[in-house]
Amino acid sequence: MDSMESNSRRIMLTVAYDGTDYHGWQYQDNGKTIESELNKALSTLLNEEIMVIGASRTDAGVHALCNIAVFDTKASIPAGKFAYALNQMLPSDIRVRKSEEVAVDFHPRKVKTRKTYEYHIDCEEFPNPIKQRYSHFTYTPLNVSLMQQAANDLIGQHDFTSFCSVNSTALSPVRMITDILVTQNGCDIVISVTGNGFLYNMVRIIAGTLMEVGREKYPPEAVLAMLEQKDRTKAGPTAPACGLILAKYEFDL
Amino acid sequence: MDSMESNSRRIMLTVAYDGTDYHGWQYQDNGKTIESELNKALSTLLNEEIMVIGASRTDAGVHALCNIAVFDTKASIPAGKFAYALNQMLPSDIRVRKSEEVAVDFHPRKVKTRKTYEYHIDCEEFPNPIKQRYSHFTYTPLNVSLMQQAANDLIGQHDFTSFCSVNSTALSPVRMITDILVTQNGCDIVISVTGNGFLYNMVRIIAGTLMEVGREKYPPEAVLAMLEQKDRTKAGPTAPACGLILAKYEFDL
Repeated sequence: MDSMESNSRRIMLTVAYDGTDYHGWQYQDNGKTIESELNKALSTLLNEEIMVIGASRTDAGVHALCNIAVFDTKASIPAGKFAYALNQMLPSDIRVRKSEEVAVDFHPRKVKTRKTYEYHIDCEEFPNPIKQRYSHFTYTPLNVSLMQQAANDLIGQHDFTSFCSVNSTALSPVRMITDILVTQNGCDIVISVTGNGFLYNMVRIIAGTLMEVGREKYPPEAVLAMLEQKDRTKAGPTAPACGLILAKYEFDL
Repeated sequence: MDSMESNSRRIMLTVAYDGTDYHGWQYQDNGKTIESELNKALSTLLNEEIMVIGASRTDAGVHALCNIAVFDTKASIPAGKFAYALNQMLPSDIRVRKSEEVAVDFHPRKVKTRKTYEYHIDCEEFPNPIKQRYSHFTYTPLNVSLMQQAANDLIGQHDFTSFCSVNSTALSPVRMITDILVTQNGCDIVISVTGNGFLYNMVRIIAGTLMEVGREKYPPEAVLAMLEQKDRTKAGPTAPACGLILAKYEFDL
């Protein structure tokens, strides 16, 4: 049996999903999750119980273009073929975009990463039904240049306690944001936030706060003050999940 | 009662919808349609039986940003308020973007119009779950410049029998296409077709045929020959409904 063990490989999956109909990434006893769908498909495919390890535990309703999951198997299927095989078995709102072999000790939550989340906002006069699954609709006009001005104060390494759900279990509230870009294209506004990791609800609280700045509810300078107060009640509301997409995931293998 | 009749107004609604979960626009005894949802909401709102007249009877699964519906009522609600009131009652995948009063004899299928349909194609390596509701995925690469070359031969007034479902009940197969534009932005390809009206499945057959040209299954010149043969079996397949969006609707009131 020991010699069998030595044949175990670690396979990494790059996974895209429409999170609308899921209770988030993480396995739950009740409720459909991305992780449980992957476990189910892999366990059926390989005829053994498989439990993936995910990189980002996205919330209910949040989407991803490139979340990462790894699992171990002794099966001899070529690594690149898992994507094709799994896509035959997964529901159509989950797709494995790539499958490849990685080092057996590669752990997607212990490797240095750079992630980019995009928060999409729809500012049309009425909610557009063909945008609503992937963007947050708001009636009130937003001043994008004020939003960018406020966003600039969040770039860098900070204690993000004010921008973190009180339900967070993270050991440290310090994170590094390398970039925030607020762009507008017609009625579509996108807040792109890049960093080495994010606290629970952090991007959605940043988006909710920047939207309040865009509505001129408070001036851009107020955001730096919120950050310094290290108090969740001082920042803006948590923006709805539907607008959030895990858009980019970079790391060294 | 006669004096009441003279107070009847005709209200025009501009309607957007995600057609994924509907059996098309037109009322059916079985199955949820856009028209039946509008009739239901209006009848509840006005406490009288309302039957709208629609401009474009889009197929099952086809989307719209701006379909048109009119109805008559003697209710005194200001015309502009219908949009707000109906949006409280309609399912979230249907939205009335505008409501306004029009001439009592305005008929959306008897007025001269210019419509633009967009056919959206996703050419990524794997189907992207957050694009699949609103675009048709294809694994095979498409040569967009060949598609545009073929499309140019369809512009103008022609007998489009070859590009019309055999189930069509139209009196004449002659239609005028004023423009077809095939554009590519990364993995997204859009075929925009503008004309004064379209036969049953016409835009989807044009899209299916242009995709075959893009795959180099036949040369661009073949499309003109298909048109001249006036035979549905000579043109390409009908592209799937999900990629089609009624994007623009222009007419003189």
